[in-house]
Amino acid sequence: MKGFKKQIWMLLLAVAFVGCNQHQEKKEQKGEVVKFDNRIAADASYAVMNRILKAKETPISEIKFEKGTYHFYPNKAYEMYRNISNHDDQLTVTPFPIVGLENITIDGQGSTFVFHGVMIPFIIHQSKNVSVKNLSIDWGMSFHSEGVVVANDQKNNTYDLQYSKEYPYEIRNGQLTFLKEYYSHNMGQSILFDPKTKAVAYATENYSNWFSVVKKVQVQQNLKEVKYPYKTDKQDPIHSYVGKEFKGYVKEVKPGVVRVFNHTKKLPKVGLILVSKGDKTVNRTSPGFHITETFGFNGNNVNINHAGGMGVIAENSADLILDNFNVVPSKGRMVSSTADATHFVGCRGKIQITNSTFNNQLDDAANIHGAYKEVFDVIDKHTIGIRSGHFQQKGFLLGYKGDKIALVREAESLSPYKTITLKSYKKINGRYAIATFEEELPERIIAGDLLENLDAYPEVVIKNCTISRNRARGLLLGSKKSTLVENNYFHTEMSAIVGPAHVDHWYEASVCANVTIKNNTFQDCAYGGPNQSVIVLTAEKDIKELTFKNIVIENNTFNQFDNLILDIDKTENLVFKGNTITNSGTFPQLHPKNPAFKVQKSKDIQFVDNTYKGTAKQILKSDNSVSNLKFQ
Amino acid sequence: MKGFKKQIWMLLLAVAFVGCNQHQEKKEQKGEVVKFDNRIAADASYAVMNRILKAKETPISEIKFEKGTYHFYPNKAYEMYRNISNHDDQLTVTPFPIVGLENITIDGQGSTFVFHGVMIPFIIHQSKNVSVKNLSIDWGMSFHSEGVVVANDQKNNTYDLQYSKEYPYEIRNGQLTFLKEYYSHNMGQSILFDPKTKAVAYATENYSNWFSVVKKVQVQQNLKEVKYPYKTDKQDPIHSYVGKEFKGYVKEVKPGVVRVFNHTKKLPKVGLILVSKGDKTVNRTSPGFHITETFGFNGNNVNINHAGGMGVIAENSADLILDNFNVVPSKGRMVSSTADATHFVGCRGKIQITNSTFNNQLDDAANIHGAYKEVFDVIDKHTIGIRSGHFQQKGFLLGYKGDKIALVREAESLSPYKTITLKSYKKINGRYAIATFEEELPERIIAGDLLENLDAYPEVVIKNCTISRNRARGLLLGSKKSTLVENNYFHTEMSAIVGPAHVDHWYEASVCANVTIKNNTFQDCAYGGPNQSVIVLTAEKDIKELTFKNIVIENNTFNQFDNLILDIDKTENLVFKGNTITNSGTFPQLHPKNPAFKVQKSKDIQFVDNTYKGTAKQILKSDNSVSNLKFQ
Repeated sequence: MKGFKKQIWMLLLAVAFVGCNQHQEKKEQKGEVVKFDNRIAADASYAVMNRILKAKETPISEIKFEKGTYHFYPNKAYEMYRNISNHDDQLTVTPFPIVGLENITIDGQGSTFVFHGVMIPFIIHQSKNVSVKNLSIDWGMSFHSEGVVVANDQKNNTYDLQYSKEYPYEIRNGQLTFLKEYYSHNMGQSILFDPKTKAVAYATENYSNWFSVVKKVQVQQNLKEVKYPYKTDKQDPIHSYVGKEFKGYVKEVKPGVVRVFNHTKKLPKVGLILVSKGDKTVNRTSPGFHITETFGFNGNNVNINHAGGMGVIAENSADLILDNFNVVPSKGRMVSSTADATHFVGCRGKIQITNSTFNNQLDDAANIHGAYKEVFDVIDKHTIGIRSGHFQQKGFLLGYKGDKIALVREAESLSPYKTITLKSYKKINGRYAIATFEEELPERIIAGDLLENLDAYPEVVIKNCTISRNRARGLLLGSKKSTLVENNYFHTEMSAIVGPAHVDHWYEASVCANVTIKNNTFQDCAYGGPNQSVIVLTAEKDIKELTFKNIVIENNTFNQFDNLILDIDKTENLVFKGNTITNSGTFPQLHPKNPAFKVQKSKDIQFVDNTYKGTAKQILKSDNSVSNLKFQ
Repeated sequence: MKGFKKQIWMLLLAVAFVGCNQHQEKKEQKGEVVKFDNRIAADASYAVMNRILKAKETPISEIKFEKGTYHFYPNKAYEMYRNISNHDDQLTVTPFPIVGLENITIDGQGSTFVFHGVMIPFIIHQSKNVSVKNLSIDWGMSFHSEGVVVANDQKNNTYDLQYSKEYPYEIRNGQLTFLKEYYSHNMGQSILFDPKTKAVAYATENYSNWFSVVKKVQVQQNLKEVKYPYKTDKQDPIHSYVGKEFKGYVKEVKPGVVRVFNHTKKLPKVGLILVSKGDKTVNRTSPGFHITETFGFNGNNVNINHAGGMGVIAENSADLILDNFNVVPSKGRMVSSTADATHFVGCRGKIQITNSTFNNQLDDAANIHGAYKEVFDVIDKHTIGIRSGHFQQKGFLLGYKGDKIALVREAESLSPYKTITLKSYKKINGRYAIATFEEELPERIIAGDLLENLDAYPEVVIKNCTISRNRARGLLLGSKKSTLVENNYFHTEMSAIVGPAHVDHWYEASVCANVTIKNNTFQDCAYGGPNQSVIVLTAEKDIKELTFKNIVIENNTFNQFDNLILDIDKTENLVFKGNTITNSGTFPQLHPKNPAFKVQKSKDIQFVDNTYKGTAKQILKSDNSVSNLKFQ
């Protein structure tokens, strides 16, 4: 009987095992393993695109590249129009049009993919379980340009920049134009890097202009005759360029060296590198990955050495895992991606970022948030005309059928006055869509009210990552579900971690709650110039209610040159426990009058078992909204 | 028996009649007659677009508008990405997305449709039997700007322009920027009009620049580092702006009056009007009608008072009838459409334009041609990778399955070296497509060979039309089938009728044959400046063969101030008969040394029964390719 029982168990186990394996095998056998080798290396776009376009008829389980360097040109890549959140919408091309596919793996086997010009390496849309692994993404010519400061002249308020042949340029009517493969840009958004630290330069924001140096035009006639019957978006390029002209200009002083005139900040120091990426609204064309409406993405052992925009932008997707997924520069460049390393809008399920390095990107390491849509008009009892408020959110999906949608009146609160259920959503144009709802709309709904998808927030885990040397922030945490930030290293030019709660012109929905930040090291963060805290929870001024809830900041090390460690506002139930704050002495202090901690309009805040070895004269500055609050 | 026979005949006739009527009624009863009234007049976009989008589920036979003025804003119009031949490709919006519909009539009943900003009034795609009647199309603010020349200064080489409040502007770094609803433009392409004649000014091309006044940049470094592995299109904006900067600039001298510096032609005369429409590659966004892959279009009693591009651009369509279809300016403006009044590329069946007026458009009245595609690469024995050569032909369809496609080697001839049959066509991106053919490709085929769709040419009738006051030419005739130009009035700035045969950078296929031009009046054509003939047949220099065939020019009246009436090259079998040439004396002659007739490299040319009362010292100048040729 014992033997019989054992046999039965063995059989059951075998069945279970076979079942598992079958599932595994079924997945693997579902399509061809396509193999590409170095014969296509000179321009792999056609072969790759052509095979992927046939994947619905002849399924692919895996595409494997023989290890090598593969070039991808736009000429024979596949064209798609893409609304891309926080980028410039465009007709673009990709060699990897992964659209409507399931269970597909791209394995570079250690290859480098070099892209040329305006294109998107990976477009992943309405797909399931897509894996990309073992490859590096780079560009032949970068979407930014780097000039070494070789002189400055206080008397004449000029400085000189030297450009290597890697950055071809011409001067058109006093403006530098950098010429690239299938692309060009002007100086536009610029920032200083320090070649010694290979990081954004200390106090750069006192020396460099993040926008073109412009002034008001002196002549305007009859502009009031240009009338708009509907609400306009001042950020939209049709409006944002009006009334402005260049104030700054350049002259070449010798081949490869240009002198910059009419600078409006302190003159940059000799030896630093000015990185320029051109004007906003035209300089975010080529993210590394654009992932939309996709359930299951796995990026493993991937390096993004460059991108003309973000490394990864994911929208309305779920279950995104980045492991050993690094955004780091190549070829001695100061810059990796020219915008955020990773950015997630309206995503759900789980976002897991582990064992990754995000260095030298020109914006945040990870920005995770929802998106507010605006009620444009109420069409009938169940139907709303919906406006996308920011021009870089055009075409953004409100959500899927069945999603719970909050109605929010910003003037009163960011909490919903009513929650309704999405029935259908039809895009009419980038700015306008029509949505129907299961329930009758509340009578009080009016144009200008906001819609927020409550189901479009993820659980977030960010663990064992290095975030440093980049412009702007580290993590922007905007999920209401749960967020764990553990065992990471931060060295960021602005705040390391931000919990924002603003609608403003970005229409980003991001009120975080249930956040644990533990065992991280914060090394000299917020060194770029602005008066910012290492960790900050900052809510819109007009909101009165408690906004951020259930925050634990535990066992972290803050080795900071400056004072401000934590700045919280309208926060409920925050514990700051077991943290160690030391003075690094790395840089001269920028804001020596700051306290170490600021607390405003909050409730249930505790400081417990912390060690403070910093230099702030006042450790805790509180508005007494929390009674008897003490740092300890 | 007689009565019986008669009854049988009557019955048969009745059956036939009922049959006809049934067909008619069936067509009419197929869908709803949708009626719109003035309640939607403030912004009709949403209501119209919304109903048309439902037309596949709930068919429409007719949309009738209560007579009135209807405004159409882009905010709630329907979005589509459009490759538009000879325009700037774009994501655009339309309130009339007539896509995949059949037997539908839009009847304005005398209404005016006023559009606002960048949008296309009618997009008609993959539809059958679409009629549009009894309406006028206009724009709230124009896509061009008109300034009155109020002074000029020979000594300082400046002239002054006065702008009314209809044309708001600002000056950015010395460049005029005109601001419109959802649009702006600089001076760019400009031309003079004469308010007395309400036409393009006499000899304008000696005074006005058709492109921005630019000069070469003085500083360029390392441009050779920007490498392109594939053939480039120098017209493409990514290349066409390189190496150029503005030479001309303006200063305001008093409110509404600006002074133009660095003009490079004769100074414009006081009292004339300078019309400016901005730079090429960004100034053709909003044609009145964009018709693609549509079989049967009927435009009747339609006025296009303005358009930001062409009045009508039709591609790969068939059987297009324009009757009482007028492109004429409104509101005292000098300009109607800012490009051609009508333009047909790769159309077939019949094009019939009757009883219409094309006045004051900024390009030709009608341009009818095919399009050459280029062999990019030979993929296998039946498959070619195809390149679109001109950036304004991106995405243009080679043709339909079964079409006969000529293979042409331009260096040798514009006649095909082989004709093959199209099997399939897949667009990969705007520049690149993959075509397969029924036959094996000839061995001699190489990259750079041209493809011409021999089935994509129409029979053309242009009758009882007035073509005058516009910039550029009257008719560009490029069909090989048959063309009748009868009883029209021409008063054009350049040639009235052109038969071109050039590939050049436009890649327009247009070798005309079987053309009859009769009973027309040509009144002072080619008065704008360039040395052009009233009628010209002009072939590419390197072509040796006879190109134009079977041309009759009969019973026309040429009342001309200047000499050159007809200029033919490589023409076979042309009869010029019964025409009367008189001297109008309207303007001083521009090219007094010209003969009246030029004949080169031609065969079988006859002049018969003509009356010449002109002033040319030499009536006929011939290269003796036709022996014993005499004017009579």
